[in-house]
Amino acid sequence: MIRVMEVNAATEQKTEQKSLLALLPPGKRTRLRRLLFEFGPGNGTLMLLPIDQGIEHGPRDFFPNPASKDPEYQFRLAAEAGYSALACQIGMAEKYYPDYAGHVPLILKVNGKTDIPSSDEALSTCNANVEDAVRLGADAVGYTLYVGSPSQGLDLEQLRQVRQDCDRFGMPLVIWSYPRGSALDEKGGQTTFYAIDYAARMAMEMGADIVKLNLPKIDPEKDKLTPAPYNEMDVSQEEAIRQCVESAGRALVVLSGGSRIADDKVLEQTGFIMRAGGSGVIYGRNVWQREWNEALEIVAEIKESLLANVSRIP
Amino acid sequence: MIRVMEVNAATEQKTEQKSLLALLPPGKRTRLRRLLFEFGPGNGTLMLLPIDQGIEHGPRDFFPNPASKDPEYQFRLAAEAGYSALACQIGMAEKYYPDYAGHVPLILKVNGKTDIPSSDEALSTCNANVEDAVRLGADAVGYTLYVGSPSQGLDLEQLRQVRQDCDRFGMPLVIWSYPRGSALDEKGGQTTFYAIDYAARMAMEMGADIVKLNLPKIDPEKDKLTPAPYNEMDVSQEEAIRQCVESAGRALVVLSGGSRIADDKVLEQTGFIMRAGGSGVIYGRNVWQREWNEALEIVAEIKESLLANVSRIP
Amino acid sequence: MIRVMEVNAATEQKTEQKSLLALLPPGKRTRLRRLLFEFGPGNGTLMLLPIDQGIEHGPRDFFPNPASKDPEYQFRLAAEAGYSALACQIGMAEKYYPDYAGHVPLILKVNGKTDIPSSDEALSTCNANVEDAVRLGADAVGYTLYVGSPSQGLDLEQLRQVRQDCDRFGMPLVIWSYPRGSALDEKGGQTTFYAIDYAARMAMEMGADIVKLNLPKIDPEKDKLTPAPYNEMDVSQEEAIRQCVESAGRALVVLSGGSRIADDKVLEQTGFIMRAGGSGVIYGRNVWQREWNEALEIVAEIKESLLANVSRIP
Amino acid sequence: MIRVMEVNAATEQKTEQKSLLALLPPGKRTRLRRLLFEFGPGNGTLMLLPIDQGIEHGPRDFFPNPASKDPEYQFRLAAEAGYSALACQIGMAEKYYPDYAGHVPLILKVNGKTDIPSSDEALSTCNANVEDAVRLGADAVGYTLYVGSPSQGLDLEQLRQVRQDCDRFGMPLVIWSYPRGSALDEKGGQTTFYAIDYAARMAMEMGADIVKLNLPKIDPEKDKLTPAPYNEMDVSQEEAIRQCVESAGRALVVLSGGSRIADDKVLEQTGFIMRAGGSGVIYGRNVWQREWNEALEIVAEIKESLLANVSRIP
Amino acid sequence: MIRVMEVNAATEQKTEQKSLLALLPPGKRTRLRRLLFEFGPGNGTLMLLPIDQGIEHGPRDFFPNPASKDPEYQFRLAAEAGYSALACQIGMAEKYYPDYAGHVPLILKVNGKTDIPSSDEALSTCNANVEDAVRLGADAVGYTLYVGSPSQGLDLEQLRQVRQDCDRFGMPLVIWSYPRGSALDEKGGQTTFYAIDYAARMAMEMGADIVKLNLPKIDPEKDKLTPAPYNEMDVSQEEAIRQCVESAGRALVVLSGGSRIADDKVLEQTGFIMRAGGSGVIYGRNVWQREWNEALEIVAEIKESLLANVSRIP
Repeated sequence: MIRVMEVNAATEQKTEQKSLLALLPPGKRTRLRRLLFEFGPGNGTLMLLPIDQGIEHGPRDFFPNPASKDPEYQFRLAAEAGYSALACQIGMAEKYYPDYAGHVPLILKVNGKTDIPSSDEALSTCNANVEDAVRLGADAVGYTLYVGSPSQGLDLEQLRQVRQDCDRFGMPLVIWSYPRGSALDEKGGQTTFYAIDYAARMAMEMGADIVKLNLPKIDPEKDKLTPAPYNEMDVSQEEAIRQCVESAGRALVVLSGGSRIADDKVLEQTGFIMRAGGSGVIYGRNVWQREWNEALEIVAEIKESLLANVSRIP
Repeated sequence: MIRVMEVNAATEQKTEQKSLLALLPPGKRTRLRRLLFEFGPGNGTLMLLPIDQGIEHGPRDFFPNPASKDPEYQFRLAAEAGYSALACQIGMAEKYYPDYAGHVPLILKVNGKTDIPSSDEALSTCNANVEDAVRLGADAVGYTLYVGSPSQGLDLEQLRQVRQDCDRFGMPLVIWSYPRGSALDEKGGQTTFYAIDYAARMAMEMGADIVKLNLPKIDPEKDKLTPAPYNEMDVSQEEAIRQCVESAGRALVVLSGGSRIADDKVLEQTGFIMRAGGSGVIYGRNVWQREWNEALEIVAEIKESLLANVSRIP
Repeated sequence: MIRVMEVNAATEQKTEQKSLLALLPPGKRTRLRRLLFEFGPGNGTLMLLPIDQGIEHGPRDFFPNPASKDPEYQFRLAAEAGYSALACQIGMAEKYYPDYAGHVPLILKVNGKTDIPSSDEALSTCNANVEDAVRLGADAVGYTLYVGSPSQGLDLEQLRQVRQDCDRFGMPLVIWSYPRGSALDEKGGQTTFYAIDYAARMAMEMGADIVKLNLPKIDPEKDKLTPAPYNEMDVSQEEAIRQCVESAGRALVVLSGGSRIADDKVLEQTGFIMRAGGSGVIYGRNVWQREWNEALEIVAEIKESLLANVSRIP
Repeated sequence: MIRVMEVNAATEQKTEQKSLLALLPPGKRTRLRRLLFEFGPGNGTLMLLPIDQGIEHGPRDFFPNPASKDPEYQFRLAAEAGYSALACQIGMAEKYYPDYAGHVPLILKVNGKTDIPSSDEALSTCNANVEDAVRLGADAVGYTLYVGSPSQGLDLEQLRQVRQDCDRFGMPLVIWSYPRGSALDEKGGQTTFYAIDYAARMAMEMGADIVKLNLPKIDPEKDKLTPAPYNEMDVSQEEAIRQCVESAGRALVVLSGGSRIADDKVLEQTGFIMRAGGSGVIYGRNVWQREWNEALEIVAEIKESLLANVSRIP
Repeated sequence: MIRVMEVNAATEQKTEQKSLLALLPPGKRTRLRRLLFEFGPGNGTLMLLPIDQGIEHGPRDFFPNPASKDPEYQFRLAAEAGYSALACQIGMAEKYYPDYAGHVPLILKVNGKTDIPSSDEALSTCNANVEDAVRLGADAVGYTLYVGSPSQGLDLEQLRQVRQDCDRFGMPLVIWSYPRGSALDEKGGQTTFYAIDYAARMAMEMGADIVKLNLPKIDPEKDKLTPAPYNEMDVSQEEAIRQCVESAGRALVVLSGGSRIADDKVLEQTGFIMRAGGSGVIYGRNVWQREWNEALEIVAEIKESLLANVSRIP
């Protein structure tokens, strides 16, 4: 029996989240097990390396560590430091992954966009598809969904095709689920518990196997603009994360670090993500904006923290 | 002979509504009979459990009963309390329905959207299709149509594909038919008898087998903005419902409860919906925003009211 | 020899319009002959019953005769009063036509829209296609074209698919050709001789076998806003109709009655439509907004007028 | 050796334009030879009869000669006066061409639009395709391209499909290449040498075998708004035409007459078009806005002028 | 071992860029080797002749050298002066390339647009596809990507199809990667190091085998509007180019000359492009806006400079 007990701090009720792997059809199960048990820290955890900043932000993120401008740096890091998987776009997958095929699993991100135009009506169109991922030997597909964008109609329609192809090919689907767009401005913006919680639920309802979330930020000024009952809740960030993880239901949740923060904060955060029911972390700049040895060191510490705080069996 | 007598209060004429089931091709008939006679209260009635609030409103609807945040709660309720069917989106159907397959019929809702952006040009794009429903063993497909939206052109085109696939696979089509969009503002809004009546007719003309309507609300201020002769009619809510049911013709009609209301109101409403020719109800928050035992109790009472007030043979 | 002599009042020249049927490929000819000779008044005339008001206007058109809200009323009328064909949308064709299959020909209208949003950029998208019509045993397909709408690009592209499918399946194509959209406001609006004449020609050039037109209205205030030479012409409504019929060339023309008018006007109008070269009429509200016996009576009189004034062999 | 010497008045250099026919694959060559040598004036010239005014302008163009409202008039004229080809839309091709099949070649125009809405963002969508042309025995396909329109993206994409189908079926492609759209307002409008020259080049670069241009008009006020070096050039209309013909390279060029002008002007113009390297003319209103005998007379004179001034072998 | 050492001036670190050819699948490798080694200057360099100004700017670019208006001029130049390849649109490829097939490789540019409408929302739609390129014997496909345009969603989606077809047919993909669109106005415009660097990275991430860039321009006024750290960097143009080349990773980079500049500047520029790791140049107007012999002379000098400054093995 693969089960995990979760404690809901607010209600003191215990709920049991059924195993995701046990539910999945064989293709998805085979591939997802590689990420959860065969690569990376293992024991059902996920330590993912994202390399999509070059398209999402441009090369500016690479200047703090010039070596990182060469994708080879991150690919080698993913393989040598023992990541569960790395996530990148088609061009890098075609030109850099071949040397690492079999050494670290690939999550092919199939959509993306630059941050040059306004994100008021954010939509990230597909520059690759699930067949590309199959052809390249990827073990999962990544999709960025902008929850609440005025362009959500096109987004959900596009995601449908990706999700159906994932079902067809037995390919796990990772949804980067981000609240976004002008309509959120008057509802507290894109970082509130309300917004992240909605994003978590949307991703699960749209068929994600793994949901990638940003950390909700507690900010009373913004929270009071959110719909009831969020506007009157008084929760800690840890509790908010726990609830977001719950909203994703049987889908596994990984949380990201965003821009670079202090080392102790990285590790502390990793701990409470895992204790809140998270299945892992996806840290990019916090890792590869360091020199090689420093990067290996922080990775080792993150792994330790991940394994020490596992609270959910996938 | 499957016939039902309906009394049109306004004209004192009796009209006979021909049986829907008798008309349907075998695939649709087989599946729809399961909902009407094999599951739920039976005797040609429909008691449907919707679980689409997580996408349409976000997790906020689950806070009154935290247990309901876990979809398992509603799935178990649907099966154990004996619903005619439950209606949910693809992600939940894939991750929660397997344990209940065969225990309660599934209506796969194939479109949906968040309520974050304005609904001035409301359009709900498809995140799943009829083949998904066939694959999952669903007994019907649900589609949300926004009647009168400036985006109606895209909506009707999209619905065409869903309707044609339903015809191809013998899958019953349930249309959630909602007046919506900025153009209704100056015509009395989306809750008038005029608007709901139009929505009922549209759904039938577009090929619905079952039409899901919201209850029309009688509000003289709004009604006088509606087109003639609605702006001069003086009807009760019961009579308005009866007429809306009539406008849906041979399609069966279920009415929803919306946000939570008092228990006696729920039961009273159920009674006059059925006496007006409705075929059943679709109550979500009114049921699962309760503790487990309370939920079972109200369900039992709703069933009783449904069966006591049947006025139409499907 | 199937020929018809037409007198052009303006020029006193006689032109011969070649027979349409003689030109058509066998599938179109077979089906169209049913409407023109085997059903309805016959002798090459068309008496069509439209039942698309429920989608185009909503149920409000049915209140003057509540019995007409049940589509059964119009279907039975079409069959028993001996119409050439009835025209309706997919939902009604699927749910009401089966009982009348073989008793009265069906024209399946494949597009439609509500009148709730503005028609400034009018476009009526397809909710069915020609294959649906073939499957249902229809003898023609109906398409609404909004001539001059800013959305004409999408309209013509969509019509292309319908027209090509009609060619492929040998299905006659009836175009409801309506001037519409904001650009007509400064050119005299949608009811002028100019606008209807353009609509007649467009429908023929786009491949119509039958063109459905509204009656042009002579209004000097509006006519002087139309392009030359229409702005300086002084023609009677009868002459305007004759010219519009001519503009449709070899395509047959039927004219509609619009909202209900007096009986003698209906019959008078029918007469001059036929004498002007029209092939028939399409009267909806003028017929079914009456009690059953009254409806049968006016239909008998319309038939008589149609047959008495035939001036064109189809 | 099929060659033609062209004198570039500006530079006094001679350039040789290679034969188009020699380049074309067999299907295109077979069909285009019919227009150039087997029908019409022959000897490599083109005299085309356009009948697309009914859709582009409405029936108003037919009033000066009421007989021309009946498409039979133009079809008979094309055949009896000996045109190289006639160009019309699908509806007329289907309903009027059968009687003339084999007697005069058909150019099926596959896109078109009314002139009712603004042409600020002009786009002419396809109402037929190349397969229609093949089915009808056409010898070429016509496409209207609006060069410089803000909708050019959609236009070029649509043209791609038409061009590819022409390549697939060996069907010659005639591009009606018109500068159009709001962006030209501040660059001198749609009739300048600059605009027509750009249109000529665009058509060739997009794959035209024949380019149809309007005559450039020399107007110093407008020319000074055009980009350098056009804004400082001082050329005659004849020289401007010669340059436009050159810009179309190996594609043949035909020029149109536009609205009706005096007879001597028609013939004079025909002469300098041919001497400037043009391959022929496409005169509509200048021909069929005349009584039958008058029309035959002017056609005979145009033919004579065409043959007397040939300067290019196709 | 095919390797090349690159010196990163800023960090004094040496990085090794792995060979692109070694990575490519056989179809791409076969074709790309022709450009790099069998035609043109060889030794892994690229000297490309663009002939797309006729569509991008209109014929105005040809006036400085009237002979260049005839595409034959550039085709002959490409073959006789020994270019690595010429790049043009479909119409010219079909009408002028046949005579040069086998004498100089063809890069078929599959999208393009006029410069008449505003480029605020620049998007270049496809007027040809990869199958056209295969049919014509092309050795690569060219695509123009507008990085940062508000229309980027459509652009990336369209590029996906082109890239996937290139993968399917083993066709090398050359991306003309241009920062463009209104959103760049407040970020320093389209010529900054920031903008070009982003464009280089985007092209590589989207799957380019070769990236065509414009030269970044150093302008302190504009640079201070760019995002950090670009707004505070103080680099030379040479260093900026080196970094942009690095951002394209394993994709080869060619740089363009833009409008005509002085001869010594052309050669100096060629030198530092090659020393910065570039693989070649794409000079159009700087070459063919010259008389034939002058053109041959400058080409010879460019070749010499290319070969003298090679710093990267492809």
